[in-house]
Amino acid sequence: MKLGDKKSSFHIPEGMIYLDGNSLGPLPKHAMLRVQQMMETQWGDQLIKAWNQSGWMDMPDRIGNRIAPLIGAPPDTVTMGDTLSIKIFQAMAAALRMRPDRKLILSDNGNFPTDLYMVQGLIDQMDHGLIDQMDQGHILKICDPQDVKQQIAEIGSDLACLMLTHVDYRTGRLHDMNKITKLAQDHGAVVIWDLAHSAGALPVEIAHSNAEFAAGCTYKYLNGGPGAPAFIYVRPDIINQVKPVLSGWLGHRAPFDFDLDYKAATGIGRMRVGTPPIIQLAALDAALDIWDGVDLGLVRAKSIALSQCFIEQVACKLPDLVLASPADSAQRGSHISYYYDEGYAVIQALIAANIIADFRAPNMMRFGFAPLYLDERQIIAAVDALADIIHHRRWDQPKFKAKAKVT
Amino acid sequence: MKLGDKKSSFHIPEGMIYLDGNSLGPLPKHAMLRVQQMMETQWGDQLIKAWNQSGWMDMPDRIGNRIAPLIGAPPDTVTMGDTLSIKIFQAMAAALRMRPDRKLILSDNGNFPTDLYMVQGLIDQMDHGLIDQMDQGHILKICDPQDVKQQIAEIGSDLACLMLTHVDYRTGRLHDMNKITKLAQDHGAVVIWDLAHSAGALPVEIAHSNAEFAAGCTYKYLNGGPGAPAFIYVRPDIINQVKPVLSGWLGHRAPFDFDLDYKAATGIGRMRVGTPPIIQLAALDAALDIWDGVDLGLVRAKSIALSQCFIEQVACKLPDLVLASPADSAQRGSHISYYYDEGYAVIQALIAANIIADFRAPNMMRFGFAPLYLDERQIIAAVDALADIIHHRRWDQPKFKAKAKVT
Repeated sequence: MKLGDKKSSFHIPEGMIYLDGNSLGPLPKHAMLRVQQMMETQWGDQLIKAWNQSGWMDMPDRIGNRIAPLIGAPPDTVTMGDTLSIKIFQAMAAALRMRPDRKLILSDNGNFPTDLYMVQGLIDQMDHGLIDQMDQGHILKICDPQDVKQQIAEIGSDLACLMLTHVDYRTGRLHDMNKITKLAQDHGAVVIWDLAHSAGALPVEIAHSNAEFAAGCTYKYLNGGPGAPAFIYVRPDIINQVKPVLSGWLGHRAPFDFDLDYKAATGIGRMRVGTPPIIQLAALDAALDIWDGVDLGLVRAKSIALSQCFIEQVACKLPDLVLASPADSAQRGSHISYYYDEGYAVIQALIAANIIADFRAPNMMRFGFAPLYLDERQIIAAVDALADIIHHRRWDQPKFKAKAKVT
Repeated sequence: MKLGDKKSSFHIPEGMIYLDGNSLGPLPKHAMLRVQQMMETQWGDQLIKAWNQSGWMDMPDRIGNRIAPLIGAPPDTVTMGDTLSIKIFQAMAAALRMRPDRKLILSDNGNFPTDLYMVQGLIDQMDHGLIDQMDQGHILKICDPQDVKQQIAEIGSDLACLMLTHVDYRTGRLHDMNKITKLAQDHGAVVIWDLAHSAGALPVEIAHSNAEFAAGCTYKYLNGGPGAPAFIYVRPDIINQVKPVLSGWLGHRAPFDFDLDYKAATGIGRMRVGTPPIIQLAALDAALDIWDGVDLGLVRAKSIALSQCFIEQVACKLPDLVLASPADSAQRGSHISYYYDEGYAVIQALIAANIIADFRAPNMMRFGFAPLYLDERQIIAAVDALADIIHHRRWDQPKFKAKAKVT
């Protein structure tokens, strides 16, 4: 099947060029009907019985099994729920319990900041009792992405956990997952990968990497809708030793026994927490239909072709624009960025022209290339518009200013 | 406005008597259209722009302000997100940081167990470093509900936090929120109330109680749909001292600055964590329309009338059935339970007769009375069916067995 056949599965407004699927994927046309049917025939007609009759209770694990092949995970190693922030918290809390004698956590500034914030909150809480012994507390060290390998080597056997985002949310720079995981594990560290900008953007082989944990969101390239639940992967040989700090009732081995004491479920189910968001899961389930049978190798090839096309067009039409992303496509995910001091205004002008990209402070214009619904003609048109805006400083024009207010 | 006028707002299957609104409220008719419109015109047409254009970013706080009057909270003290389990975790983590020198947490076995599980996971993680000093760790003490006051007095100034569910999920027994809060606070403890079975079931005056924290779910009496997001309340005079252990990017004071360090937002916004579930929030927002202008005093009066009617009907038709709930309606929330050793089978038979109630292990039949859509005729019919099933042991009949399989 050609990837081009997938474009008609999405609702994309007439005339819009959407280069922000790395932030929020578009609406799968049949997701609306699926949600409507779920609400009417399951919630509406079956009410509480739907938890069993319509398989609501199993949705997190069942949908986890639809995500698994997209990230190179075996069956029954992925479950759904909560947000990526929460799933990172779960993974890090478990990782730190696996290395109680080590206090150093390494990450880089290419994570979406919420991952760092969650770790900061976690270790602050864990070390609450060390008021007089702060030298015994955990330390989160944040380096530049290019320094990760050297930092791992320097920290050596003090490294408790390495947490990295596979694809940098700013530049699209791609970490070498296998090599870095092995390096950290050779020093005895636990490894967590954030796959937010990877899942559905390029082939991921999480099991092959041997990393202990991974998590990601489903509203970007997977098109699960705004606030779609996150996924978490745990390497199957360790799952039954993992301590779920967020020990909610749906991670209990027998939730309906209503025990007073938590006993973790066997397997990935222990990473579930509370009552799952069934309406969001129904939308996501529909979105994942589109991924059935998709060859991620083709996705990657088209992603690279689209990104290269954009870069070449910019090199030709806006030669002064400075690429913030790696020039080598093998070193990137599926979005690229350019530095531009007036980038915020440029992006607003692009949006006013119905070309949707985004801006990341302080000076980065970001363009995402979701292969399922984009083509080269759109890329060329987008760069033409970008060049026109920058050459003519169109954001200085009153008409644009009036328009920009509403975006 | 009479409460009876609200029944037509809900999709309830023809002929069904729904006595389980204390578990999952029915579908508000207009919620389906609201979700459909949101998906099509916001996610579909506006895509990423909807975060601002359609106010997605503000939804958790805006909807929190719709919940606030239902629980007696002032504006800007309630926000939405995650699950009740997560919100309890947040509240308890913050409470324990407010009383660092106290290690004892008191709760009772009338909480839905997930609250206890979350606390167990939290303190296990917090005390990870105390391997050789386990006597310094936190202790979660779980007593019977009727012993709470005595336990508070006995524990005295060792009590860090009291966490209770206002309405017992099993029996509907109601704690005296004001009196118990004052008692615990007189000993210097922080107080957390779980309002899962209270919000929308009876008037709650959380601000008046002076409790520091409250949390609850919105898929029971508030009819927000399966897995609808939870709410959390924090007393406004302490919110800016609260340390958010789940320090996600949407609780940051400037999420779009992409700082590497977490700095908590001012006000209730710091209790937000990750990207909010917009589709679920849209359904909940629609469900809350039904509550506009509803007098919770009338809700309470009708709830008591329906519960009393059920109890009187049972006393007349099934005099041997033992009420597990308090006989005094002032001591109950909006559901009641009966002990019955074959209760599971009885409830299955009731469900087969299109009367939906539920069962809580080991031997409790539970009936909920949501005043917005129930009337006395239905209560009488339900008890008639219950009496018929029990008198004739209808669950022993082959026909019932065949039917029961699918429920």
